[in-house]
Amino acid sequence: MNPIKVGLLGIGTVGSGTFAVLKRNQTEISRRAGRDIVVTMIADRDLDKARTLADDNIQVTDDAFAVVVDPDIDIVVELIGGVTVAKDLILKAIENGKHVVTANKALLASSGTEIFAAAREKGVIVAFEAAVAGGIPIIKALREGLTANRIEWIAGIINGTANFILSEMREKGQSFETVLEQAKLLGYAEADPTFDIEGIDAAHKITIMSAIAFGIPVQFDKVYVEGITQLTGEDIRYAEELGYRIKLLGMTKRTKKGIELRVHPTLIPSQRLIANVEGVMNAVVVKGDAVGATLYYGAGAGAEPTGSSVVADLVDVTRMQTADPMHRVPSLAFQPDLLSSTPVISMDEVETAYYLRLRVIDKPGVLADISRILAQSDISINAMVQKEPTAEDNVDIIMLTHLTIEKRINEAIVDIEKLPVVTGHVVRIRLEELKND
Amino acid sequence: MNPIKVGLLGIGTVGSGTFAVLKRNQTEISRRAGRDIVVTMIADRDLDKARTLADDNIQVTDDAFAVVVDPDIDIVVELIGGVTVAKDLILKAIENGKHVVTANKALLASSGTEIFAAAREKGVIVAFEAAVAGGIPIIKALREGLTANRIEWIAGIINGTANFILSEMREKGQSFETVLEQAKLLGYAEADPTFDIEGIDAAHKITIMSAIAFGIPVQFDKVYVEGITQLTGEDIRYAEELGYRIKLLGMTKRTKKGIELRVHPTLIPSQRLIANVEGVMNAVVVKGDAVGATLYYGAGAGAEPTGSSVVADLVDVTRMQTADPMHRVPSLAFQPDLLSSTPVISMDEVETAYYLRLRVIDKPGVLADISRILAQSDISINAMVQKEPTAEDNVDIIMLTHLTIEKRINEAIVDIEKLPVVTGHVVRIRLEELKND
Repeated sequence: MNPIKVGLLGIGTVGSGTFAVLKRNQTEISRRAGRDIVVTMIADRDLDKARTLADDNIQVTDDAFAVVVDPDIDIVVELIGGVTVAKDLILKAIENGKHVVTANKALLASSGTEIFAAAREKGVIVAFEAAVAGGIPIIKALREGLTANRIEWIAGIINGTANFILSEMREKGQSFETVLEQAKLLGYAEADPTFDIEGIDAAHKITIMSAIAFGIPVQFDKVYVEGITQLTGEDIRYAEELGYRIKLLGMTKRTKKGIELRVHPTLIPSQRLIANVEGVMNAVVVKGDAVGATLYYGAGAGAEPTGSSVVADLVDVTRMQTADPMHRVPSLAFQPDLLSSTPVISMDEVETAYYLRLRVIDKPGVLADISRILAQSDISINAMVQKEPTAEDNVDIIMLTHLTIEKRINEAIVDIEKLPVVTGHVVRIRLEELKND
Repeated sequence: MNPIKVGLLGIGTVGSGTFAVLKRNQTEISRRAGRDIVVTMIADRDLDKARTLADDNIQVTDDAFAVVVDPDIDIVVELIGGVTVAKDLILKAIENGKHVVTANKALLASSGTEIFAAAREKGVIVAFEAAVAGGIPIIKALREGLTANRIEWIAGIINGTANFILSEMREKGQSFETVLEQAKLLGYAEADPTFDIEGIDAAHKITIMSAIAFGIPVQFDKVYVEGITQLTGEDIRYAEELGYRIKLLGMTKRTKKGIELRVHPTLIPSQRLIANVEGVMNAVVVKGDAVGATLYYGAGAGAEPTGSSVVADLVDVTRMQTADPMHRVPSLAFQPDLLSSTPVISMDEVETAYYLRLRVIDKPGVLADISRILAQSDISINAMVQKEPTAEDNVDIIMLTHLTIEKRINEAIVDIEKLPVVTGHVVRIRLEELKND
């Protein structure tokens, strides 16, 4: 059988990793795919780098558009990133009847609906395992492995940089700023780490998983995002004393009111497996009604782990292209004409538990005032710890609430902060038990 | 499009779970599969039970052979178990051009080669996600999610009964016998628990995963099996003091000498994620050369978790049946004409580390004698702890060795047991670091 011909756009970290894996394991991959999969064109602005990768059978160009229109190419692998040129290239590739494999989470989270519709019209496949959680085959698990289930929720540690920072802060007792600098030195954080530490990257990924899990369109504009820049070592330590770890979690959940879609620092019970995922590793917990909670763990980034997912998609596309298009795995797991219109609810409506830290002046009656405000907002307390007073006679009070509505807790915090005995702002971190029931 | 018609053989735990999931989530499943999947025939010896499940559109029979030859049936789901009638039914179904979905690990581990060959000849699919690790989509991850990788090793907690017993022994300090009785009362262990506690069930599963990972035929006769019946609370406690947990692990590994294939109690560093998998839960770590270590966790048994995998296979078969047979996912991940003849090596040749517990008479020179024997066998010691002497002046010495060959450790143990100061047998438990490098 003829080999499948691949055009590779972009040979940065993931592009190089993909090329290396495909080359090193070509025999193993062909033994599985039943067919050779070969890169025949590489496009990159750095022609010298491209030429060092390529052998005589690979055409090198700095014009990516030449690849997506080339009649010899079966599959275009887009690893350029960004939401402008990459989008044009993918749409052009689709228009020319090419299947597409991409790791571009930002693009799919924002323009997925348009791209999948274009692919459907041309009867081609757009595969994107590498867009979420690097080497972990989580898209496949969600779209195929768990098809029997009504998915109830997904919770994921899906940004390695943020998880590395939180792990180090906890283990070494260092500040956010100190650990961020280390992460940059180690290559775990980029020079501009905004996307990672502000939760935007995680938001892209949870948006894509949410769409697949619940059969809704991708709606990046609806995701609530809160990063880890405000977290202090104190809260990490207090949480640990209460039996919790703080993780930057991407959450999406089916509720009676609609779909919850959010990224924020979250307390998780320390005994949960996902709470023990440390460093740059990623993990996703998926709760299905039949299977219960399942967890998927592995490297969430890096050249070869992400390349592993790109190549898995290449093999999948190679296999699926001969299947009747109606019978292929749908891009968003559900048949496109059967997508649900269940709304994504606003953060105000989300129901969860909370960790609150209040700094108060240590005198009688303080607790009574605070308790009264919480009770008026119908918020009940699950646990409370009062720490030792500091030199200035300030004392930290930590409260864990039962489930309540975000709107209510925010209103209560406004009232609590008005109390003269409360100094500074109330720290509020969401808490998820992630129970398997 | 016409619905896919399923004949369900056996409505025990997994059969009932499968039927319940398929019925409850039929809308969700059809939205994903693009086609309805309906059970039209049920075969079970318990006709009354079958009739309570079935509605008017389902034909009920106590003759399973009538189902596998029925021209209306597209897919046969075999959930009877065992290696005799089930095998005849599956082969008959294949002969009649039916696709087959089964959870029968014992049958596939022993007769997989024959069954897959028959299916290939007739151009039908035999799917078996439910045969390994219940609801965890591990077969899909191995066969499809990690196709880019040269798999290096797999380590799995793949028997929930055994893991429950070991978890309880550690947490509550109870004996094997006490916990086994509890497990029976809780329904976690069968009246005859041999298959679970002697490691045979785990051996079936690791045999299947080994074949898929390395592209070798299933070879149940080659797997080394050692159960957990000899484990004592002392060793579990000593291991914990040294930073390890003892798990019944299924291991398979590619080495220069061949494939290792084994099931036995194993010390794992407590900080590894898999060491923290407790109770009846299952988890499998897969180490690939590109992706590194990935872990898959979830319920390893039970009606609906296992049903979840059966139904996922039904959806997969529904999708894949229109693909050119050459392009379908091969049963054993690799194209059948490209299976490898790499041999499974004998346990004697396996290289691993060891935990040794020796009970000795507490007098000078004992350690020198033991150390001399180990040195003569070229076994080096990684850690040693001497416990407090007991009333009888006996003392326990715990040693952790570096990597060595099983044959050597066995020879050394024979010599050590001959020493007059050594009382009783040397306890030997294998130790795996499961490092991600």
